[in-house]
Amino acid sequence: MTGIVSFVSSGPGDPELLTLKAARRLAEADVVLFDDLASGPVLSHAGPQAELVAVGKRAGRASPKQDHVSRLLVDHARTGARVVRLKSGDSGIFGRLEEEILALTEAGIRFEIIPGVPSACAAAAAAGIPLTRRLTARRVQFITGADVTGDLPQGLNWAALADPLATTVVFMGKRTFPALAQALITHGLPPETPTLLAEAVGHPQQVLTRSTLAALAAQLAQGSGDQPALILYGPLAGG
Amino acid sequence: MTGIVSFVSSGPGDPELLTLKAARRLAEADVVLFDDLASGPVLSHAGPQAELVAVGKRAGRASPKQDHVSRLLVDHARTGARVVRLKSGDSGIFGRLEEEILALTEAGIRFEIIPGVPSACAAAAAAGIPLTRRLTARRVQFITGADVTGDLPQGLNWAALADPLATTVVFMGKRTFPALAQALITHGLPPETPTLLAEAVGHPQQVLTRSTLAALAAQLAQGSGDQPALILYGPLAGG
Repeated sequence: MTGIVSFVSSGPGDPELLTLKAARRLAEADVVLFDDLASGPVLSHAGPQAELVAVGKRAGRASPKQDHVSRLLVDHARTGARVVRLKSGDSGIFGRLEEEILALTEAGIRFEIIPGVPSACAAAAAAGIPLTRRLTARRVQFITGADVTGDLPQGLNWAALADPLATTVVFMGKRTFPALAQALITHGLPPETPTLLAEAVGHPQQVLTRSTLAALAAQLAQGSGDQPALILYGPLAGG
Repeated sequence: MTGIVSFVSSGPGDPELLTLKAARRLAEADVVLFDDLASGPVLSHAGPQAELVAVGKRAGRASPKQDHVSRLLVDHARTGARVVRLKSGDSGIFGRLEEEILALTEAGIRFEIIPGVPSACAAAAAAGIPLTRRLTARRVQFITGADVTGDLPQGLNWAALADPLATTVVFMGKRTFPALAQALITHGLPPETPTLLAEAVGHPQQVLTRSTLAALAAQLAQGSGDQPALILYGPLAGG
């Protein structure tokens, strides 16, 4: 009797921003696999019977253990366990979900995906701003600021990213933001475009900093600290 | 003693995809203002004391009542009530949130935004796919397929939208999809690009249909029905 793997989106970190369904899956889980980013208060929703397994990924670090995580999922599910794989934010957004899905599919193990609150939505909500606005911010896009090496990804779509009529949210992009901002300005985005730096979104130590493209780039070039962060830019970011 | 307005994101429709915080705000509300799209089972989380006020917006229809909604929010908050303004999906994404925020700010009324599960994330989860993938789908973007007149918006960023390395989610775009797809193909996106039509996401009558850009456009040109829908296109949409 094979178990099932539930990919549970844990939201930005605030345990109250879990969905009811996510909380129920955690309460009923036999095993919970979690990354460092999804840890802490969210895990308090797991029941006393649950085995909690840290799989040790962190933002901004390469993940040599991806195969290891997939193997753990398969091995636990084969014991018949109800396995929860916690993923921070929404699991479908920059969560490397597909690699784990593929391993389960190959092993013939059932899975489900419980969607959640993306950290980008939580950052905007915390700042009291929407992500879209009629006419002037009618497209919203999410990108990562770092590839597996930690550098700015190659071959970015600058026409998309330097669009003044969009809200852009950069995940894992604090360290590379000076380079990104420089390229955006070169591609025509005004240096005074509003930005919002959202650090530790949904955690008690959350800090929101409003700035501009040029000023935030200058600030982060001096050092960006260790807190995980999102950067929003576009006409709404300064609101 | 002035009340407070909580903009509560109700998620895609499944009441289990409410956040714990959203459910708590509903349970404690004195007044709940809701659109047709956010109605039904989600409202069962409201307490028996709550006055439920339908404000009657529907997808695909112009909203002549936006001012009316803002006035209702202000009037109810001025009685000292705990007012919940329900918004489907995540309230910050195509929810016309800013107009209501502005009215509250002008009237000096406190508000908070509770983020939620975007219907785009729920659609992808229901289809068993992520929204991003390393290297081949590393940008995800949300657009609307209709402006206030119901037509395809003018001046779209075709370099952004015809990008084969992105996942695009089109909100309220079923009727205009034939025109959108034709323009995307003209701008270089292959006609065989995978698509996912997700109707009534998070509701019992949910239907997911996998197709291609050209084939889905031909299908929707024959008629698109009344169900609210999202359309995803990009390399992951067919998975």
